[in-house]
Amino acid sequence: MALREEFRADLHIVSQLLVDMAEAVRTAMGEATTALLRADKAAAEDVISRDAEVDSLYRQVEERVTDLMARQAPVASDLRVLITALQTAADLERMGDLADHVAKTALRRHPSPAVPAELRPVFQAKAAVADKMAAKIATVISKLDTVGAAELDTDDDAMDALHVELFKVMLSPDWPYGAETAIDGALLGRFYERFADHAVNAGHHVIYLVTGEQV
Amino acid sequence: MALREEFRADLHIVSQLLVDMAEAVRTAMGEATTALLRADKAAAEDVISRDAEVDSLYRQVEERVTDLMARQAPVASDLRVLITALQTAADLERMGDLADHVAKTALRRHPSPAVPAELRPVFQAKAAVADKMAAKIATVISKLDTVGAAELDTDDDAMDALHVELFKVMLSPDWPYGAETAIDGALLGRFYERFADHAVNAGHHVIYLVTGEQV
Repeated sequence: MALREEFRADLHIVSQLLVDMAEAVRTAMGEATTALLRADKAAAEDVISRDAEVDSLYRQVEERVTDLMARQAPVASDLRVLITALQTAADLERMGDLADHVAKTALRRHPSPAVPAELRPVFQAKAAVADKMAAKIATVISKLDTVGAAELDTDDDAMDALHVELFKVMLSPDWPYGAETAIDGALLGRFYERFADHAVNAGHHVIYLVTGEQV
Repeated sequence: MALREEFRADLHIVSQLLVDMAEAVRTAMGEATTALLRADKAAAEDVISRDAEVDSLYRQVEERVTDLMARQAPVASDLRVLITALQTAADLERMGDLADHVAKTALRRHPSPAVPAELRPVFQAKAAVADKMAAKIATVISKLDTVGAAELDTDDDAMDALHVELFKVMLSPDWPYGAETAIDGALLGRFYERFADHAVNAGHHVIYLVTGEQV
């Protein structure tokens, strides 16, 4: 195989690993939400035990990219592709950690629900946005879809609006719960918000890759 | 200059940029703590306006590293050094964001203090650990000091213990404040904790660099 073809083939493998990571963290956050809203212990444990898979995919991306850099000594746009792949993998790995944090919070409160009835709708809505964003990343990476990548910013606005909504409920004068529930709500809210932030970063990486412009 | 000497000289510049970043985020977190504990508006605004400097240093590391990779086509350990420099810069950049978050929380509550008297000692102690860790990173990077790098793990244990302490105060039956103060406390506590986590990561990067072993 010519060097160029070999580079393309290797790059395709890296891209596929990133898509695998995006799908894995999407599944993880979905299952973590089930654990959270249904106090489902088995779901929580599954998310936690499977975080190692995401970490392993991350190491594979690192190894492939390092190997490719060493063998092919890429310059210009090829080099940019590889560095961006590393950065995207780091964002996806962190998204896996955040799903893990949600699952661990659910587990810590089990068999009680970590989230009271008043906060369920907003967490359901946050989870829906998170799921949509994680699904989009997979397509954005595999198709280098800059339109989808830019949409992630708008999705993140929806997540931010839900975050404001969450705090409005917790800070209303008739909030009947104590500090513990408020703290759990605030930290859980932040885990979903950060998940979305990293999805946005992943989108920005792809836009940079295609257009050469930092968002 | 021979290629090899040129590589060393360029690498030294990258290393110096990382040290500059470590010093900048140390100053930022120190000033953010002043803003937080003394309700000091000017300090908060200074941290926020100077976060752009950290971001700019991060971009400079990215550019230098990309340029070096393209010009020198490094392999093996040289390549590892460069990739690790990028990852360390990403951790330091995030530490700057976390100082910015602390400053913004202080500003949002100004002229009230964001942290009530009961929580001051624990935040003072968290800030002291954060400061020690950020100072250590600068030395660890400039001297490739693996002993100091490993100490960051122990420092982080101290931060984790303070985090437990923080929650103990907020969840005690005689906690006199409402949900808002508890939420601020939990999120602020998390900002310091994450600051320490990224410092630990930076230490692990240096250990990997010197020993070739992932921590």
